[in-house]
Amino acid sequence: MTGSNRYDVTAWPVGDPAEDVGEVINSIIADIKGRQAVTDENEGGKPGAVIYIPPGDFRLRTQVVIDISFLRIEGSGHGFTSSSIRFNVPEDEWPDLHELWPGGSRILVDIPLSEEDEESKGAAFYIERSGSPRISSVEFSNFCIDGLHFNPDGSEMHPANTYVNCKTGIYVANANDSFRITGMGFVYLEHALTIYHADALSVHDNFVAECGSCIELRGWGQASKITDNLIGAGFKGHSIYAENHGGLLITANNIFPRGASSVYLKGVTRSSVTNNRLHSFYPGMVVLEANSSENLVASNHFLRDHEPWTPFLGVDNGLDDLYGLLCVSGSQNSVIGNHFSEVIDSQSIRPTGATPVIIRLTAGSGNYVASNHVVAMDVRAKSGDSAFSAQVDALLTTEAGDGLAVTAVMVNTESVRNTILDSGSDAQVVLDKADNAFRATPAIGSKSA
Amino acid sequence: MTGSNRYDVTAWPVGDPAEDVGEVINSIIADIKGRQAVTDENEGGKPGAVIYIPPGDFRLRTQVVIDISFLRIEGSGHGFTSSSIRFNVPEDEWPDLHELWPGGSRILVDIPLSEEDEESKGAAFYIERSGSPRISSVEFSNFCIDGLHFNPDGSEMHPANTYVNCKTGIYVANANDSFRITGMGFVYLEHALTIYHADALSVHDNFVAECGSCIELRGWGQASKITDNLIGAGFKGHSIYAENHGGLLITANNIFPRGASSVYLKGVTRSSVTNNRLHSFYPGMVVLEANSSENLVASNHFLRDHEPWTPFLGVDNGLDDLYGLLCVSGSQNSVIGNHFSEVIDSQSIRPTGATPVIIRLTAGSGNYVASNHVVAMDVRAKSGDSAFSAQVDALLTTEAGDGLAVTAVMVNTESVRNTILDSGSDAQVVLDKADNAFRATPAIGSKSA
Amino acid sequence: MTGSNRYDVTAWPVGDPAEDVGEVINSIIADIKGRQAVTDENEGGKPGAVIYIPPGDFRLRTQVVIDISFLRIEGSGHGFTSSSIRFNVPEDEWPDLHELWPGGSRILVDIPLSEEDEESKGAAFYIERSGSPRISSVEFSNFCIDGLHFNPDGSEMHPANTYVNCKTGIYVANANDSFRITGMGFVYLEHALTIYHADALSVHDNFVAECGSCIELRGWGQASKITDNLIGAGFKGHSIYAENHGGLLITANNIFPRGASSVYLKGVTRSSVTNNRLHSFYPGMVVLEANSSENLVASNHFLRDHEPWTPFLGVDNGLDDLYGLLCVSGSQNSVIGNHFSEVIDSQSIRPTGATPVIIRLTAGSGNYVASNHVVAMDVRAKSGDSAFSAQVDALLTTEAGDGLAVTAVMVNTESVRNTILDSGSDAQVVLDKADNAFRATPAIGSKSA
Repeated sequence: MTGSNRYDVTAWPVGDPAEDVGEVINSIIADIKGRQAVTDENEGGKPGAVIYIPPGDFRLRTQVVIDISFLRIEGSGHGFTSSSIRFNVPEDEWPDLHELWPGGSRILVDIPLSEEDEESKGAAFYIERSGSPRISSVEFSNFCIDGLHFNPDGSEMHPANTYVNCKTGIYVANANDSFRITGMGFVYLEHALTIYHADALSVHDNFVAECGSCIELRGWGQASKITDNLIGAGFKGHSIYAENHGGLLITANNIFPRGASSVYLKGVTRSSVTNNRLHSFYPGMVVLEANSSENLVASNHFLRDHEPWTPFLGVDNGLDDLYGLLCVSGSQNSVIGNHFSEVIDSQSIRPTGATPVIIRLTAGSGNYVASNHVVAMDVRAKSGDSAFSAQVDALLTTEAGDGLAVTAVMVNTESVRNTILDSGSDAQVVLDKADNAFRATPAIGSKSA
Repeated sequence: MTGSNRYDVTAWPVGDPAEDVGEVINSIIADIKGRQAVTDENEGGKPGAVIYIPPGDFRLRTQVVIDISFLRIEGSGHGFTSSSIRFNVPEDEWPDLHELWPGGSRILVDIPLSEEDEESKGAAFYIERSGSPRISSVEFSNFCIDGLHFNPDGSEMHPANTYVNCKTGIYVANANDSFRITGMGFVYLEHALTIYHADALSVHDNFVAECGSCIELRGWGQASKITDNLIGAGFKGHSIYAENHGGLLITANNIFPRGASSVYLKGVTRSSVTNNRLHSFYPGMVVLEANSSENLVASNHFLRDHEPWTPFLGVDNGLDDLYGLLCVSGSQNSVIGNHFSEVIDSQSIRPTGATPVIIRLTAGSGNYVASNHVVAMDVRAKSGDSAFSAQVDALLTTEAGDGLAVTAVMVNTESVRNTILDSGSDAQVVLDKADNAFRATPAIGSKSA
Repeated sequence: MTGSNRYDVTAWPVGDPAEDVGEVINSIIADIKGRQAVTDENEGGKPGAVIYIPPGDFRLRTQVVIDISFLRIEGSGHGFTSSSIRFNVPEDEWPDLHELWPGGSRILVDIPLSEEDEESKGAAFYIERSGSPRISSVEFSNFCIDGLHFNPDGSEMHPANTYVNCKTGIYVANANDSFRITGMGFVYLEHALTIYHADALSVHDNFVAECGSCIELRGWGQASKITDNLIGAGFKGHSIYAENHGGLLITANNIFPRGASSVYLKGVTRSSVTNNRLHSFYPGMVVLEANSSENLVASNHFLRDHEPWTPFLGVDNGLDDLYGLLCVSGSQNSVIGNHFSEVIDSQSIRPTGATPVIIRLTAGSGNYVASNHVVAMDVRAKSGDSAFSAQVDALLTTEAGDGLAVTAVMVNTESVRNTILDSGSDAQVVLDKADNAFRATPAIGSKSA
């Protein structure tokens, strides 16, 4: 392979990166492929390349298609700013704003789409390769993918609050190995990151917010990690979603509202959701569904409180307060050492008069729930016009609340032979004691042997 | 925006970066601002820029003032070396040393200061912007900020051991969003990183050591993370400090001595201190103060032992052994699954003859303390002239110790309705059993039901 | 220091980086050293430099020798692809493969070796400096070190499956401080990373797989972290090994098969193995040996199942099923809140008819084992020709299994005064009840007080 393997989108002779960086990158990829040849001579072959996106605005009208391993696309700035706050500011105040758009090394996703297009057509970066070996070690680092606008979908909601625009940041269609997504910013995309059939994927230290759904691992996969990210989906989507994955490690993430779920696992086995900070405005924060089994949910901090920001009042994910903040349909999972804070207005509980559920086991068997601490507080909901100050106000409010009666653990009859230890008082745990093992958290004033 | 958004401080025509890199960077920022215009046309505007600091020594005599979003300042080396060890080596041995100063992409903070200056004047990087939106996505990456010297403050201590010089590495004065501090080195600053009003801040994978205080989150804030750092403050300061924060995730940090505290939280709620390795020479390692509530302190390793390095013998943080390694004033916190090792010389216990306290609940209610393991050992203190070998010697000493009687958990009468489970024997837990729930760790030879 | 401190191996006048990048880098280091002078004048001195390796194939025939602090070697791609899968594909299918070798910024380790060479001769990067201060802040970032081939060692095994070639990626021979290994790829090396006498080392976010042993911390050391890596050693070696270390933090790693051990600690004290996902095909996943004491093993997910890939059938680490998945020889350790899944074919248990052991305490005293959940399942072993699909199949299989009787905790008589709580039923825990404290996990249908 001759020539340099380092490219700068602003220095490439084909296309105009400001007008269509997609055309530029595709042309660079064609150049890389033309210069690489399959060979086993001298143990060399296809090292790939790095494509650099400097800080600046780069419109993407043409989807980038990647079918080579070892390609790294990197920028110099994740560029997040809150488009949601900006779009909910009255337009006549926009001239007073310091800036109106995200920044950094910024891709403006502007792919022409029609309604009948399949989902992948709206992806800024589309990775697809069949055959052997699986495509490996594609890396995305430290740039911003901005979906620009959400579009009205017939609801009465402000378009900017719909989280609908058929755009995806990065879409990986095939089995892949050792991909790395690091330091990126994703904003205002209906789907930030959609990856099928991942093996040994690393999604680390990204900022993924104000997207419909943030990180979706689809199909099946194994041995991946989603770590140390700041994440917050829209009310329609998932902050982290995985299906049919084994050995997935979800840890050290700070996941903020308003995702319909913080972590949604479907048919996921032998995986970990540990040591995350999770905050939501709705029930169904962490869902283990479709026989998700032998997983460890430990040392997480769950906070569910109320939507404090005026533009989103009345919006939710449709789940009622009996659903559970953590809901498990599956077997042999471990739920150990988590903290749950439920800080809600009792007048808003649904169904009216219900006792909210914190941990719910709906089906399966043999789950182990131990040493979880549930805190519940009844506060009068209030809201504000500033997303930041309203959220901080809500977060720091601990004095005003009265105690709120909750069901710490509810075990459906369809879930059997579970063990529930030190996770709620006798009155707070609802289960068939003949069919499960139970040890109540000792009551105040009691001294256990 | 025309022109390149990538700058190199050694290639900029204004100023001399070796003599005053502050002047150079301020000139670059002025250039960036002059080239950016507020516009909503074409969805473009103010992408920011990246300023590169190559490896080398760059004196900073003029404070850098940042008031634009999406600015990234990056180097090619965090450059830490121990100035503390060097300054405690006799001067006549200095010619034998391989090197005398930190390195990498190194900022030498040399701002002229007078005694009446306010704290922010001593900051190498000062970020301040009012109005809307909040300043966003400023990034610092992979360079070194070196405060050069500590100054005598009238104590009898060697100046290099005072941790006083009125210098700060990075100071953020206003509300900010999505800032990122990654891969940096901070050394010999009175304050390494001082940030007011942070939202979705990431302080990740830095080396912050031999600074008075390391990471201070002041004012209020939310949804931030301090993760995977190597941190060690001076005896006067905090390794990690936060006030009035909600949803803060402090995880995967390795915090070494000799900070007055490892983690100090004041009015912090619904946050996590999980999965850290904490080492200190004094009590008061983790402090939850001023009604810090609903926090999770879990899966941490606490080690408190003795100062082993001769130059610091006799120095401490002033707290006695009744204070607790973990001290909680607040409500509804969870303290679950931590390991505590107290390895001290019983002859040095203060007050003389006291029984040292490991976990202390001083005020509040409803805290949940479960499955914590306390190990205590009485060892003869010894010290050495080499910081490294003395510390390793101390760390690896496990055979020599006798058992040491400690109070695993002490609950003041001002802290009520707490639950203490499996965190100490009957003799090791001091509390009002009528007012709390208590289950002793079973005694050897007993078999619980 | 004059001149630039940023070097590109492809732009340096000495040597040919494609033919011998080792010669090139050594020449660059000589240049750096020639330009640096020890001086305390003006607080400046030896800032080091950065050496850039662009994407491409760079053969290394000459060992790189590093004896200066603050050197950063960085590339633009970790370049992992599975050489193991490729070499186990029949050669006549190779022309159909998209690529045959790892890529990115790739070092091809091709050092001439003879059998009598000592281990360090086979290292691509050799770091050695005596005297004071310790060498500091050497950084390796985002490139690939490829050992190319394993060699037959007289076994009947396919050479590619032997994990033997006497090559090491990075070898640090002396005491060192604040080193940083980040974003690297290591593949097909007998030893990926061997570091003696580390202080405040960070090994973070790397991909270390298909190496004999992956991360070895030898000699002694302290206050380091191994975090957020994807790791998988060969059947002969360790994924993570440490000896005589204190204050080591091993967290957020996803460690996959087939290492002889996932984490092996020898004489390690006051350290943490927390929050990792661990997967192995053999017993002896986490071993605390040689009086490893006061460590915290918490919130980890352990999975032991069967080798599913045809080429490795019949290969193992030689340990039988009584060894334990976690085996502890040491005192005062904490084992809290872990999940263990043992998914094996009962017909393959060794010794035949034995009851497999999950947690075993072999010697020492005062260990605390609480709130661990053990799941065991008897499945018929099956295997496949594709490593990926066979592993995923195995990982997702939860339905087919019958229950399998296991000993959740076995305490040898040589290990005394331990506390075992809620980690197994009465029948599943084997210990001397007079000499330990024990509380069984409550049985189904029982309700504890």
